[in-house]
Amino acid sequence: MLFHVEMTVKLPTDMPGEVAAEIKAKEKAYAQALQQQGKWRHLWRIAGSYANVSIFDVDDNAELQDIIANLPLFPYMEISVKPLCRHPSSIRDDDS
Amino acid sequence: MLFHVEMTVKLPTDMPGEVAAEIKAKEKAYAQALQQQGKWRHLWRIAGSYANVSIFDVDDNAELQDIIANLPLFPYMEISVKPLCRHPSSIRDDDS
Amino acid sequence: MLFHVEMTVKLPTDMPGEVAAEIKAKEKAYAQALQQQGKWRHLWRIAGSYANVSIFDVDDNAELQDIIANLPLFPYMEISVKPLCRHPSSIRDDDS
Amino acid sequence: MLFHVEMTVKLPTDMPGEVAAEIKAKEKAYAQALQQQGKWRHLWRIAGSYANVSIFDVDDNAELQDIIANLPLFPYMEISVKPLCRHPSSIRDDDS
Amino acid sequence: MLFHVEMTVKLPTDMPGEVAAEIKAKEKAYAQALQQQGKWRHLWRIAGSYANVSIFDVDDNAELQDIIANLPLFPYMEISVKPLCRHPSSIRDDDS
Amino acid sequence: MLFHVEMTVKLPTDMPGEVAAEIKAKEKAYAQALQQQGKWRHLWRIAGSYANVSIFDVDDNAELQDIIANLPLFPYMEISVKPLCRHPSSIRDDDS
Amino acid sequence: MLFHVEMTVKLPTDMPGEVAAEIKAKEKAYAQALQQQGKWRHLWRIAGSYANVSIFDVDDNAELQDIIANLPLFPYMEISVKPLCRHPSSIRDDDS
Amino acid sequence: MLFHVEMTVKLPTDMPGEVAAEIKAKEKAYAQALQQQGKWRHLWRIAGSYANVSIFDVDDNAELQDIIANLPLFPYMEISVKPLCRHPSSIRDDDS
Amino acid sequence: MLFHVEMTVKLPTDMPGEVAAEIKAKEKAYAQALQQQGKWRHLWRIAGSYANVSIFDVDDNAELQDIIANLPLFPYMEISVKPLCRHPSSIRDDDS
Amino acid sequence: MLFHVEMTVKLPTDMPGEVAAEIKAKEKAYAQALQQQGKWRHLWRIAGSYANVSIFDVDDNAELQDIIANLPLFPYMEISVKPLCRHPSSIRDDDS
Repeated sequence: MLFHVEMTVKLPTDMPGEVAAEIKAKEKAYAQALQQQGKWRHLWRIAGSYANVSIFDVDDNAELQDIIANLPLFPYMEISVKPLCRHPSSIRDDDS
Repeated sequence: MLFHVEMTVKLPTDMPGEVAAEIKAKEKAYAQALQQQGKWRHLWRIAGSYANVSIFDVDDNAELQDIIANLPLFPYMEISVKPLCRHPSSIRDDDS
Repeated sequence: MLFHVEMTVKLPTDMPGEVAAEIKAKEKAYAQALQQQGKWRHLWRIAGSYANVSIFDVDDNAELQDIIANLPLFPYMEISVKPLCRHPSSIRDDDS
Repeated sequence: MLFHVEMTVKLPTDMPGEVAAEIKAKEKAYAQALQQQGKWRHLWRIAGSYANVSIFDVDDNAELQDIIANLPLFPYMEISVKPLCRHPSSIRDDDS
Repeated sequence: MLFHVEMTVKLPTDMPGEVAAEIKAKEKAYAQALQQQGKWRHLWRIAGSYANVSIFDVDDNAELQDIIANLPLFPYMEISVKPLCRHPSSIRDDDS
Repeated sequence: MLFHVEMTVKLPTDMPGEVAAEIKAKEKAYAQALQQQGKWRHLWRIAGSYANVSIFDVDDNAELQDIIANLPLFPYMEISVKPLCRHPSSIRDDDS
Repeated sequence: MLFHVEMTVKLPTDMPGEVAAEIKAKEKAYAQALQQQGKWRHLWRIAGSYANVSIFDVDDNAELQDIIANLPLFPYMEISVKPLCRHPSSIRDDDS
Repeated sequence: MLFHVEMTVKLPTDMPGEVAAEIKAKEKAYAQALQQQGKWRHLWRIAGSYANVSIFDVDDNAELQDIIANLPLFPYMEISVKPLCRHPSSIRDDDS
Repeated sequence: MLFHVEMTVKLPTDMPGEVAAEIKAKEKAYAQALQQQGKWRHLWRIAGSYANVSIFDVDDNAELQDIIANLPLFPYMEISVKPLCRHPSSIRDDDS
Repeated sequence: MLFHVEMTVKLPTDMPGEVAAEIKAKEKAYAQALQQQGKWRHLWRIAGSYANVSIFDVDDNAELQDIIANLPLFPYMEISVKPLCRHPSSIRDDDS
């Protein structure tokens, strides 16, 4: 089941560089593991921002919550979630 | 080059049923042709709405404008556009 | 799986009374049937408005879309959807 | 009498972990006691967020204020309140 | 129990004068009857607008809904509702 | 002359408790003195918040500014002001 | 006593030209009479719009309401009102 | 002197095609004449919309108002205006 | 050429009193000098706030920027700017 | 390919002067280099603000992201991006 999640990162501007770098590294590893598992199906950067649009493929709302709430950058993010489903005009079988 | 486009359809409530049906049929054919060409890469319904999230793969802004402005439902839509690019944490090669 | 849906009804003010009454009757029957099936778990009126907060219990996003899009009042509604899941502090076993 | 309350928690990102943990523990105990009393009827997590939707069953506005204002996390919350009442299409007797 | 209700009237600009006058007359009679009953405690015009701020004194949310939904001008209003209760700094005994 | 003022208090979450308590005490004394003078006619708590709705009875805009700007909590408040006047449907002589 | 009023005119696009012209003529006469009386102290066009910023000098809120509500274009306007008073840094004696 | 103007066109969906075509033709001629005069320095389409971003080079606010208010599509537009001036980091001499 | 500028001051609540006082004194001197020069034509306090509405009379956008950007309180302000011009219904010759 | 980017700078008010000056100097050098390369085609100050409107000429979304994300002031900016393309009424050949 797919969810559209937009995440905007707002790190405190006075956060020491190395602390930020460490969190980002954890975030990258976390995101790549989930992509390998097929949970995090798409991850795009919104050009001109520090935000992304992601498409998650999860079993249910609870799994979505678990994945999002454990993002290392979660405390520094503004997040909006939209449940997706198959569009009647979609010709793709693998997109829902 | 990818663009994230969210389209919310607001048909006039007093539009005759057959007129609406005709426009929707044209829209479907239009959307499916573009999907077959690979221009309209993803088309999802936002659950609980008459809106969709789409990912377009076009050569440039002009082609995006041409595709969007010629949507049969264009006059009845609220549309927001976000340019996308590859996210540094994405593991997919085919997603930008 | 639970979804929180807020629906605000905005009927055209020039809609003939009997037309409105007919749609509302269909809406009521539709809503009560879904409540009997357990799909529409809660339906509350927001006091001082023509809006409701509902909790749906559905299998997935697609079923939510199917239920919402077929509401007789759907063309006259502003709708917002939030996916819900179990809260770690909830003591209820039957609330997710 | 029912109230729909949406609470979004925004803890300061520089709050020490143990301080946050202590407040959260108090919050959980506070919430569970009220649920046992039947005051806090529903408590759901909005998936993909640090927010909840709750339904309170209180005698009047004053009691709602007393409960909300004494939430340990109250100083760190954005809160919106909507008074609820029975919906004419609801088939449930115990839902208002 | 007190509720703060702000009502903004938006009559269709093409509504015939006499139709508008009739609804307004019904609205006035309805409002004055409720004021006499003590239900509608305060009714002020927001200067420079076609809106009012009202304070209702009702038994519960359901009674508020009943009063508001039956306002003759209800279909032409944007309404916001806030539950009120006694302020700890208020010196008035009769204001909650 | 009446003014509708909504005040939302946002104290810094890292403000020491005793500092906050002191300001609140001053605020209460200030508010109660003005109520005794008849300037601060109504003071209600918006249930579920740290905000109030107040009705001030002042000679003119300048007096309103003087009262509001000297609130001890003024630096920590979001404030909105609406000028009120007698509503044509009000049956009260003492409410404008 | 001064009030800052911003008015945005939104005439129905299907209003016959002569009807619009007639209302605008009435509006102009109404505005110029009030300016001559000194009630409508300033009237500026916001460049690039069909909106104005006006400064009214009235005895109280009720007079402001009377003037605004009787604007011939009132039913077609979005209006926002801000009460003004003398600024402590103003060097003008005639500006409050 | 430069002004940044964003214009979003919202034609009534029930406007007859030929009426719309006529207004658009007038708009195009009007826009191209002003471009030839150097008043309308830049005119870009916002991709995926029926909106444009324009840069006007005018003598003052009054001239801007005159140009904008006489756009054939003016009654069907939402317009926002921002005054521009030379940026201290700009290397262009001809861009203010 | 006139510009309507609304300025809302938001000083950090932890700014030492004497630092704030010093900046405010500079701001007052700066504002009064510009008023004497005729550049800052009107300066009103919005009653119930720490904000002002000002009307500037400047040669062009660049001069407006220079004046605003050099306000001592500039770093602590939210500012909105609207270009003004003569209203066709204004009877004043000196108001544009 | 052109992009319209609006950037609003919000430096922390407690940032030491010399730190701010250093970042601004880097920003200026960065901006001027890109202007010399033709990537940063227009850079205007929005009068009365610490914001700019810029037009970038880049090969694709990815290049836009690279340029924006590496702005020295990027962590202190609110940024909005709009893809542009040739307007059908534009008479300029070099403006898309």
